[in-house]
Amino acid sequence: MQVASIQEPVQKELAQVEATLEAVTHSEIPDVRKMLEHVLSAGGKRLRPTIALLAGRFGEYKPELLVPLAASIELLHTATLVHDDVIDDSDTRRGRPTTNSRQHNAVAVMLGDYMFAHAADLICRAENIEVVKLFSRTLMAMASGELTQDMSAYQYGQDTMQYFHRIAGKTASLFATSAEGGAMVAQAPDAWVAALRDYGENVGMAFQIVDDILDFEGTEEELGKPTGSDLMQGTLTLPALLLMERHPDDNPVKKLFAEQRSEEHLADAIFVIQNTGVLDETYAVAQDFRNRAVAALEPLPDTPDRVALVEVADHVIERRS
Amino acid sequence: MQVASIQEPVQKELAQVEATLEAVTHSEIPDVRKMLEHVLSAGGKRLRPTIALLAGRFGEYKPELLVPLAASIELLHTATLVHDDVIDDSDTRRGRPTTNSRQHNAVAVMLGDYMFAHAADLICRAENIEVVKLFSRTLMAMASGELTQDMSAYQYGQDTMQYFHRIAGKTASLFATSAEGGAMVAQAPDAWVAALRDYGENVGMAFQIVDDILDFEGTEEELGKPTGSDLMQGTLTLPALLLMERHPDDNPVKKLFAEQRSEEHLADAIFVIQNTGVLDETYAVAQDFRNRAVAALEPLPDTPDRVALVEVADHVIERRS
Repeated sequence: MQVASIQEPVQKELAQVEATLEAVTHSEIPDVRKMLEHVLSAGGKRLRPTIALLAGRFGEYKPELLVPLAASIELLHTATLVHDDVIDDSDTRRGRPTTNSRQHNAVAVMLGDYMFAHAADLICRAENIEVVKLFSRTLMAMASGELTQDMSAYQYGQDTMQYFHRIAGKTASLFATSAEGGAMVAQAPDAWVAALRDYGENVGMAFQIVDDILDFEGTEEELGKPTGSDLMQGTLTLPALLLMERHPDDNPVKKLFAEQRSEEHLADAIFVIQNTGVLDETYAVAQDFRNRAVAALEPLPDTPDRVALVEVADHVIERRS
Repeated sequence: MQVASIQEPVQKELAQVEATLEAVTHSEIPDVRKMLEHVLSAGGKRLRPTIALLAGRFGEYKPELLVPLAASIELLHTATLVHDDVIDDSDTRRGRPTTNSRQHNAVAVMLGDYMFAHAADLICRAENIEVVKLFSRTLMAMASGELTQDMSAYQYGQDTMQYFHRIAGKTASLFATSAEGGAMVAQAPDAWVAALRDYGENVGMAFQIVDDILDFEGTEEELGKPTGSDLMQGTLTLPALLLMERHPDDNPVKKLFAEQRSEEHLADAIFVIQNTGVLDETYAVAQDFRNRAVAALEPLPDTPDRVALVEVADHVIERRS
């Protein structure tokens, strides 16, 4: 299903989110403005704001508080992408040159910080200190997940539990907060807030697992970055981990990690992962998280907004980019 | 005057700030814990927390809200140092190896983000959304100041106004927020809050100018980094700017910037700045900001806490490290 049609119920508010993000780019420093326009207009699908806005419809719908919340979430997400690009030493993201390669690391770090500050300022507009606390803890979980990933780079012998823990922090936490934050702003009953958080967390897990599949399946053109870039950076994702579980003694990932950035072993590893069924196995895990997300919605009234949340979960596992 | 004796009136609360910072290091990830201990125990003088705690004594003194505020300020400050080290490519800070050289840039970026998140979480404990907003805007000003500095690196033709604007953002804003935030938590009268903000801003300006003098005057041993490191990184500070105003056509800074990291020109520039009176002129500017800070305290009652704030301002311009 196309994202645009799923977003139908919150289309007006999403336009306000775009306007809010556009206003963030109005820096007094022309070069900063250009960089912000560059990173914020990169045409993400705004999945997290969509979830926040839809969740905010279970309870008292307050778009004047939800729109800054949703914009803040997207800004926080984009800020982490800017910082990830320093980390990954990436040259492209979504097929466009990153801030990192355009300017140097220094500017990317500070630009990300500037965006965090703006996100914090926006979240305050939801006028709810509990929501601000939720955000702080989310950023903590995200940074912690990224730290773990980075510090375990090129370390063989990680297992799937560590992977799930890591992606729960770096990705699922912000999806969970999108749903929970929206429900909190709407002052939804506690059981609904918990259900929506549960939904968001599982959608986030599915999202990251599909991302990790696409990293092996997509072409450089589709991904906007080279195939297998996670492995190239020493990051073990679920497809590689499942391969290692099936073939603990002899597999090209082990060789790649022993010798690090060897191009030949990388090509071998990608080929084996693409052709031994581990991608299908990985996809089944993503579907399982999608199912859990949908099941989590059970306590909520069966409205078109709930249907839209199911469609978001479906989109997350069906997407090709 | 020694910092310890100035800090007398808030000694107990400063110990609680230390304990709060120590608690921040309790990460579940052992390596993260080690890194946090490393950066947080680096033995800064805790000037910003001292100012926040002293400012919080003008009004209703609420240490249970002020201590997390003061700890949050120090954490925010330390997080920006961690990110600065990525930017500056520094190998040492306060004479100790930086996170950046110990691990790589990636980890330093994420560690800084993790600390920002903790700082946000702490600031929420002051239970005042206006204080959170103040913090967000301060981080925005700081990042903006750093961005400007970084983007103007090696650009000749900057003037002192641009310098003042830059350091107001990157340094003075957090000093201003320390004083203003403390006064806000104490629910001090508006005139006192404004006076304390004014005080903090001017102390911060004096602080940065003295820092920029020490960068030329100190030995590598005193500074924990090489003499002239600002110039080496293409950053024009007040001593260099005053030299350029006095000798617009022929000066070694111009030559250094034209050829960038030429060691010979750097040594020439440092020698000329050390021996042509511009450091004394710069120092007079710092004294002027110190005087403005002290004058700003005029509306406040003449208590030992006010005396301590004057002593903080004096310490800032008398310090050698």
